[in-house]
Amino acid sequence: MTIDPRGKTRAAPSWHQFPDDSCKWIEERIMELARYTDPKLGGYTRLAFTNEDRLAREVVASFMKDIGMEVRVDPAGNIIGKTNGKQADAPVIIAGSHIDTVKEGGRFDGIAGVISAIEAVRCFQLGNIATQHPIEVVVFTSEEPNEFGISTVGSRAMTGTLDKRLLVTLKNKDGLSLGEAIDFAGGDAKIISQAARKSGDILAYLELHIEQGPILENMGIPIGVVTGIAGISCGQVTVLGCADHAGTTSMNVRKDALVAAAESIQALERIGQRKSLKDTVATIGKMENFPNAANVVPGKVIMQTDIRSTQLKFVERAEQAFQEELRKISMRRAVNIFFNRLSIGPPATMDDWITRLIEESCQDCGTLYHLMPSGAGHDASHVSEITKAGMIFVPSKGGKSHCPEEWTDFRDIALGAHILAATILKIDERAKEVERNG
Amino acid sequence: MTIDPRGKTRAAPSWHQFPDDSCKWIEERIMELARYTDPKLGGYTRLAFTNEDRLAREVVASFMKDIGMEVRVDPAGNIIGKTNGKQADAPVIIAGSHIDTVKEGGRFDGIAGVISAIEAVRCFQLGNIATQHPIEVVVFTSEEPNEFGISTVGSRAMTGTLDKRLLVTLKNKDGLSLGEAIDFAGGDAKIISQAARKSGDILAYLELHIEQGPILENMGIPIGVVTGIAGISCGQVTVLGCADHAGTTSMNVRKDALVAAAESIQALERIGQRKSLKDTVATIGKMENFPNAANVVPGKVIMQTDIRSTQLKFVERAEQAFQEELRKISMRRAVNIFFNRLSIGPPATMDDWITRLIEESCQDCGTLYHLMPSGAGHDASHVSEITKAGMIFVPSKGGKSHCPEEWTDFRDIALGAHILAATILKIDERAKEVERNG
Repeated sequence: MTIDPRGKTRAAPSWHQFPDDSCKWIEERIMELARYTDPKLGGYTRLAFTNEDRLAREVVASFMKDIGMEVRVDPAGNIIGKTNGKQADAPVIIAGSHIDTVKEGGRFDGIAGVISAIEAVRCFQLGNIATQHPIEVVVFTSEEPNEFGISTVGSRAMTGTLDKRLLVTLKNKDGLSLGEAIDFAGGDAKIISQAARKSGDILAYLELHIEQGPILENMGIPIGVVTGIAGISCGQVTVLGCADHAGTTSMNVRKDALVAAAESIQALERIGQRKSLKDTVATIGKMENFPNAANVVPGKVIMQTDIRSTQLKFVERAEQAFQEELRKISMRRAVNIFFNRLSIGPPATMDDWITRLIEESCQDCGTLYHLMPSGAGHDASHVSEITKAGMIFVPSKGGKSHCPEEWTDFRDIALGAHILAATILKIDERAKEVERNG
Repeated sequence: MTIDPRGKTRAAPSWHQFPDDSCKWIEERIMELARYTDPKLGGYTRLAFTNEDRLAREVVASFMKDIGMEVRVDPAGNIIGKTNGKQADAPVIIAGSHIDTVKEGGRFDGIAGVISAIEAVRCFQLGNIATQHPIEVVVFTSEEPNEFGISTVGSRAMTGTLDKRLLVTLKNKDGLSLGEAIDFAGGDAKIISQAARKSGDILAYLELHIEQGPILENMGIPIGVVTGIAGISCGQVTVLGCADHAGTTSMNVRKDALVAAAESIQALERIGQRKSLKDTVATIGKMENFPNAANVVPGKVIMQTDIRSTQLKFVERAEQAFQEELRKISMRRAVNIFFNRLSIGPPATMDDWITRLIEESCQDCGTLYHLMPSGAGHDASHVSEITKAGMIFVPSKGGKSHCPEEWTDFRDIALGAHILAATILKIDERAKEVERNG
């Protein structure tokens, strides 16, 4: 649903005094963060828990300090910048996102949301606006899937849903555990449970994010108001065949793990295409082949599956259908195939009241907006489990994301940051409505 | 064809005095070399041009020096140990193989041949045997496919068939060129053409190698006499799709490079299984997926093909059929697929005279042997282009090779080393036969 408030623009409220330099301020900071990228890889690569990530975390903390925010790092490594509210003990309003990237990714995914959140706080300061509630800007640890095979580490920890055993059991190629990586980033894994926020401590959560799809651009609309986030199942497929010499092992005695993996990849594609599964998408994005030598029949393949839908039942059906296909391939080829679900995140619904306030803010600014679901997962999925959450989308050029070409016009980000600021103030002013209505 | 000389054993000639400690001497040296392996990887990994390789090269050179051989390194990085013959200017008899391994490979492939060749020279010294012809033990540079995508670097250079342009154009992930890698190993790429030996300089070439297949073990026969080596075509397949977000890109608009690659992998398997292509084997052993992140639709895949047959026409037909399949997949999926032949090595025939002398040596020792082709490529393929070449196989336990379980009993290697020594002496003594008969 698209709403066009032009012609019925409401009078902007008194606080609606956005600074003229928002666009430039945001651009400079996004471009500054883009400098912290792995020089050995293409595009923009700042994987969580790397040196680049650690340096960029210091830079983003300095952005917060520059505008007078108090900055701390919680035991999960989440960076938390805070400005106090007039009511000392009032629950906090959080705006956040992340600054880690995928391999060979872009400059905007997550980063646009973090910088917009800081910009919103700066707007309040320039406008001499003191909120009733404290405001926190949160940079969540490792939102993207990391080399430990898990995503949204920081927001899981903040909502108390990160299984503590994973801190020890999940290890990267060098044998480093997830817990050790969190410590490296500045957290303290031993006391990670203290990163969990108590129910009632948070009044609301807002996240601005790039759309990562082509819908807003195609419609020519600058703002998306997110209604819900697709559920995601992440799984690991391990194919165990037998490594043999490619020259001396005849075709009929091979147990080639890569050919079995190839069949599995195609099976998952066919499942994602099933009409009965509606908006479901199914992807194998990551795979490793062993020993990966030109003249060796592959003996092992490890792959990761990503299955999403706005309806949990479709995610589960797709996963089940895939496991049945794997069993058939395993039998036919006499190789072992194991499927291991790494995580399942049910679809998340954005809070109605917050969503209405975002819409109102768009109307106040006379801005076109579009109500839409998010196919991509976000920290907001987890945070929505413990508080009222809302999300604002800004357009992605050509729908591109997770690639170096990822781009959003800075004017769109500035507009989004202003909608974000306006919504924070509406939440701050009308919190009593919620308390009254539950 | 298997020959059982038992019952008609000829009198062992006077020089047939093999030392009692051969088995132990060989075992100690093979196990010593096995220590030089990449600690970060499983199995035994000593890729050419790495630090491990460089250290192992020094160790193997010290084995040669310990028995008084003069050691030099040619411009291609081949290590050449030499003992002079009674005839100063006579052409040389070479025995050799390699000491580099595949990733997560074994301890015997190549290494058994190098240590056996040194052991043969040691046998002559212990037996006070002076040959007419000089004898060289050669450790060829990078026999296995390396990170530059090429194999048998040293034997190509020695036979003058290494395209000099590749020294500059082939680069590894870190941007190092093949030429620079050769220099690192101890060669001198600038003058690599000087590594090429002149026709007539080499009287014969012998190589002992593990079988890397199950035939000898299954037959219970300790020695294989190789009649020919399969031809190999190595190619690179590049699939270019479009990297997109796995959550926001619906199935019908994707250009998933990995699914297209998966179809290609299966197509190549079907071609390798075609009855019309007889003994052809076709493998994709190496593949890399980009950007290889769990939540990104893959945008690029690079794979290497390995196609072999004892008949060149079958290799070429398989390659052609594969390219036709790739064209179809490319059209159907609207992705770009490029096939680039990296190298083609025609099948090699072992020299009849040499093969007969190896057979005679087996008969002298009363050893069962089996005449067989080699599915695996060897430095002998290249060397056979400039001189008479022969190969001796020793059994591989369970037919396993290119994996940590690779194993050959040291008694079998010692027996092979003695057959090798005996054959060298036969060549040395009967060289005039060849000169007479052309």
